[in-house]
Amino acid sequence: MAIIELPADPGALTPAQARAFFRGGPSVPTSGWCTGFAQANLIALPREQAFDFLLFAQRNPKPCPVLEVLEPGQFRAGILGGGTHGASDPLADVRTDAPGYRIWRDGSLVAETPDASEFWSEDMVAFLIGCSFTFEHPLLAAGVPVRHIDAGRNVPMYRTNRACRPAGEFRGELVVSMRAIPAEQVADAVRISSRFPSVHGAPVHIGEPAALGIADLAQPDFGDPPVIDDGDVPVFWACGVTPQAMVMASAPPLAITHSPGMMLITDAPDSDYQVP
Amino acid sequence: MAIIELPADPGALTPAQARAFFRGGPSVPTSGWCTGFAQANLIALPREQAFDFLLFAQRNPKPCPVLEVLEPGQFRAGILGGGTHGASDPLADVRTDAPGYRIWRDGSLVAETPDASEFWSEDMVAFLIGCSFTFEHPLLAAGVPVRHIDAGRNVPMYRTNRACRPAGEFRGELVVSMRAIPAEQVADAVRISSRFPSVHGAPVHIGEPAALGIADLAQPDFGDPPVIDDGDVPVFWACGVTPQAMVMASAPPLAITHSPGMMLITDAPDSDYQVP
Repeated sequence: MAIIELPADPGALTPAQARAFFRGGPSVPTSGWCTGFAQANLIALPREQAFDFLLFAQRNPKPCPVLEVLEPGQFRAGILGGGTHGASDPLADVRTDAPGYRIWRDGSLVAETPDASEFWSEDMVAFLIGCSFTFEHPLLAAGVPVRHIDAGRNVPMYRTNRACRPAGEFRGELVVSMRAIPAEQVADAVRISSRFPSVHGAPVHIGEPAALGIADLAQPDFGDPPVIDDGDVPVFWACGVTPQAMVMASAPPLAITHSPGMMLITDAPDSDYQVP
Repeated sequence: MAIIELPADPGALTPAQARAFFRGGPSVPTSGWCTGFAQANLIALPREQAFDFLLFAQRNPKPCPVLEVLEPGQFRAGILGGGTHGASDPLADVRTDAPGYRIWRDGSLVAETPDASEFWSEDMVAFLIGCSFTFEHPLLAAGVPVRHIDAGRNVPMYRTNRACRPAGEFRGELVVSMRAIPAEQVADAVRISSRFPSVHGAPVHIGEPAALGIADLAQPDFGDPPVIDDGDVPVFWACGVTPQAMVMASAPPLAITHSPGMMLITDAPDSDYQVP
């Protein structure tokens, strides 16, 4: 595999530049890329399962806040180069523009690929789900450290013992991302992230990983091991990888997702999702 | 029809008491009832149309924030006496507990009734949609007058010239509610309502009714004529009657909705829907 040089300052890229870069293939996490623009999780399912998933998302809005649902077979989204924010990006494509994809058959991971096009069909319905990377920029702007960005790592993500509300044939447990926050800034992290309810919003849990069924913070189920400084408190946010845990538990015939931490970068500014 | 005396202080009733009262039939608006508890719009559609409606709601989250979707045929909701908040209310029933219902066939209003049970079937899927009455209590608590409550009237609601994003076979225009707010308190009304995004959140429009295609504020399409004092500015919020405009425009074979302003009163405290 050819060595591809990463941009010196990925935060300064435009979303269209980042998408074009990832369309070429490099599978790296997108945390810290394209400062000020929202990122999105992906899950695509056959039309037959689309209602159950939309209902699953509606019943589990913390882990599955839906930003956009495409028509069956469509791979161009309004917020992803489709022209709802500024000029259209004619090459934008949900099948190629994340750094990595996972292909699931009957609940088992069968392929990991930088280009999911060959698995697509007219029958697939794509869902874009909000991502907590979106509020990392406002956290940084408020002086709250985001340790995985500082360390150049992916965020650590964990499966938990909390069941999602089922919908139709879909069930599964909550997945969380974790950020270690200095104790005196935990309240700031809550206050700031809660202003972004459609990209997971306020934390679901603060401190006490064991209460979520997480035995060892050092061994995340997805992403990279955490950096935790003295005086940090582990803060847990609902995570858009939850649909992948749902796929593992529910075994739909086919699912296409992004790879954890390797998101679609949208043209929507973070502020679109900010309240009040 | 027997004369039924209204409660002296409807704001002090519990949700279960109010539902029991409405189950008896009186068709009055619920604005100001059960202080501190969220109210909900209703639309029920045959299962065949449920995905298109859920997608319509997802694509139009300001007018159609979904609080709960029931399984086909079900008429008991968790937030409506189903026991998710405190004790279960065994008689709670989405078909009877709003003060009034509208029955629609092929987009035409064919009946208005205090009890929709006879039109229900195993095939109907009920959606509970957030209602702006929910943030009227916090507005009042902040000293912002809510003129239709003071006047003992229903809120005025208007069809607009703004198209919703279509979904499948569903389309229609945005419906808004209007509250006349003293100019010096408009910013407070924005700030406070924006903390409740799942019950319509921040206004969609402030001032200039003509820009929304509203020719005469004195003649609302639903509800009662407004009370507007000197120095008031008309402030418009997305309204949960929008699904009824969708029904008129899209003509599904059957739809059951509440009557505008006559809501289902839930057991969920307003604070459940508050961010940050």
